[in-house]
Amino acid sequence: MRTVNAIAATSATAPLVRTTVERRDPGPRDVLIEIRYAGICHSDIHTVRGEWGEVAYPLTVGHEIVGHVVEVGAEVTKHGIGDRVGVGCMVNSCRECENCRAGLEQYCTGGNVGTYASVDRDGTITQGGYSTHVVVDEDFVLRVPENIPIEAVAPLLCAGITTYSPLAHWNAGPGKKVAVIGMGGLGHMAVKIAAAMGAEVTVLSQTLSKKDDGLAFGAENYYATSDPATFEALANTFDLIINTVSAQTDINAYLRLLRLDGTLVSVGAPPEPLPVRAFVLFGARRSFAGSSIGGIAETQEMLDFCAEKGIAPEIELIDADAVNEAYERVVASDVRYRFVIDIDSLR
Amino acid sequence: MRTVNAIAATSATAPLVRTTVERRDPGPRDVLIEIRYAGICHSDIHTVRGEWGEVAYPLTVGHEIVGHVVEVGAEVTKHGIGDRVGVGCMVNSCRECENCRAGLEQYCTGGNVGTYASVDRDGTITQGGYSTHVVVDEDFVLRVPENIPIEAVAPLLCAGITTYSPLAHWNAGPGKKVAVIGMGGLGHMAVKIAAAMGAEVTVLSQTLSKKDDGLAFGAENYYATSDPATFEALANTFDLIINTVSAQTDINAYLRLLRLDGTLVSVGAPPEPLPVRAFVLFGARRSFAGSSIGGIAETQEMLDFCAEKGIAPEIELIDADAVNEAYERVVASDVRYRFVIDIDSLR
Repeated sequence: MRTVNAIAATSATAPLVRTTVERRDPGPRDVLIEIRYAGICHSDIHTVRGEWGEVAYPLTVGHEIVGHVVEVGAEVTKHGIGDRVGVGCMVNSCRECENCRAGLEQYCTGGNVGTYASVDRDGTITQGGYSTHVVVDEDFVLRVPENIPIEAVAPLLCAGITTYSPLAHWNAGPGKKVAVIGMGGLGHMAVKIAAAMGAEVTVLSQTLSKKDDGLAFGAENYYATSDPATFEALANTFDLIINTVSAQTDINAYLRLLRLDGTLVSVGAPPEPLPVRAFVLFGARRSFAGSSIGGIAETQEMLDFCAEKGIAPEIELIDADAVNEAYERVVASDVRYRFVIDIDSLR
Repeated sequence: MRTVNAIAATSATAPLVRTTVERRDPGPRDVLIEIRYAGICHSDIHTVRGEWGEVAYPLTVGHEIVGHVVEVGAEVTKHGIGDRVGVGCMVNSCRECENCRAGLEQYCTGGNVGTYASVDRDGTITQGGYSTHVVVDEDFVLRVPENIPIEAVAPLLCAGITTYSPLAHWNAGPGKKVAVIGMGGLGHMAVKIAAAMGAEVTVLSQTLSKKDDGLAFGAENYYATSDPATFEALANTFDLIINTVSAQTDINAYLRLLRLDGTLVSVGAPPEPLPVRAFVLFGARRSFAGSSIGGIAETQEMLDFCAEKGIAPEIELIDADAVNEAYERVVASDVRYRFVIDIDSLR
């Protein structure tokens, strides 16, 4: 057991504070990682504020983690000391169910172990990446290609894979028209990845304020959803729509933008149910689907894809002491496009 | 122009009455059909009662039609006098849009011409099959194989194709677990067709009152949805669920019965929106979709499939004068499983 520096929430309402967390001694198949950077995901904020259910405090969040291996267990074969590695939203799963065996650990029927706020195999509550070190089973540690700038890697482990997985599953590529709802942390990655896959990408954002960025990231079209004309102009257009917006939206208005056999996939969604009109689905054999992060093998594929295509998240690098201010700015959608904590500031 | 016997609604609330309708003289590509049998679809009732919007009265409904060709236009090549033929829910479409060109006239972007209550090319309102004769463009007339009992053919033209199309599109077949919600006119055909395709079929019906029938139609399992234990026992089970029930249902409870990558397809649905919880979709990359009847080529394929597999709807044959009583029994779900009007009783 070792005690390491971290940032933690002590209640649903108090600001995050500097503290320490305990990390287990690496077991035979564990890797000890010295964390260099950790991304701030909106999920972190929902979780620490108790908006997704009760959590045990103090709690350290963070599931976009990049760093270097500093120690390995005796049986570790996949990673060596000094390797540049990443950890995303999961640190374990049952490994026995049909989905785990298919490499789809995110859909583990027994429930995978989240990187934070989950009950780990030893009964402790997992603590996330706003911290100087973490110990993770080697099977849930990703290899990070050298040609992605290290400070930009972290957001790929959640925002990247969460958008890559549905884009790959629903065959975004040449000849396909893909729309991305929202130009935040997830949305901007969806645009970059879909464009790199060869699809024709359209951004659907509340306003045109980020239009120049969207086009620079690879979108061919950019529309404001605050303008009702957008929904007339784009009716029956898209093969695939990735909805990255968690706020309540007029889901039927977006479903009508799908062409025949098109699918709208939500990767962010409000806790309230969405009132879907079945007649809108009938009209063009449309589908409304959901997708959750991605499996470990697919996450590795995504990292390798981004390295090959030369794409990476746009980030704002902050010190640990700026995390509370950053949270306020995330809630206000005032970040282009992902905050990343420089963990050196925690040492 | 000829005047032919028919049954019509004169208002949203009055009983249907015997009357006559006008049929155009067959044009060069038209077929004049002497109707033998017409099925009663729940849509007919919704339409004449104004539950799906305003309609022009008097109105003759009926879009499950079978009979014989008695006259053909000079350019007709697909059908000859004496042929046994059928007409379903559409009598025309634009033929130019992408969907029409792909044989998916049901999704015609210009809007296809319904068999009744639609504006026809000549500006008249189409009148349906509760009538002794109908004139239809040859491209929207189906060939009916001889080995399906003629009195049982009619319901295939709506109930049959409406369930066949999503079962075929979403690949029902050997190794696939398919559930059918509802054991009415559509549901009982979904069971027969899915079983004939080789899928393992489960019926989800309010009670077990039709269980013997369901098993006889080819289902392997039959569950009552009034029993909450059903939803626990069947969680994460099905590759495909066909929802034939128009009444408001707890859609999330049914979505949870889908296994990874499963799809729930509604072919009947309430006008009110369905409150879908996106978290239920995320949990196993589930999809909620809609499907509308089928194209003309696919309808022909379905008729040939039913003939080959020796399957046909279960019907109750009635005379024209029993139609109002039959409507009440359809609304009360008191029919096993489709009323068919013997049109000889109208002559």
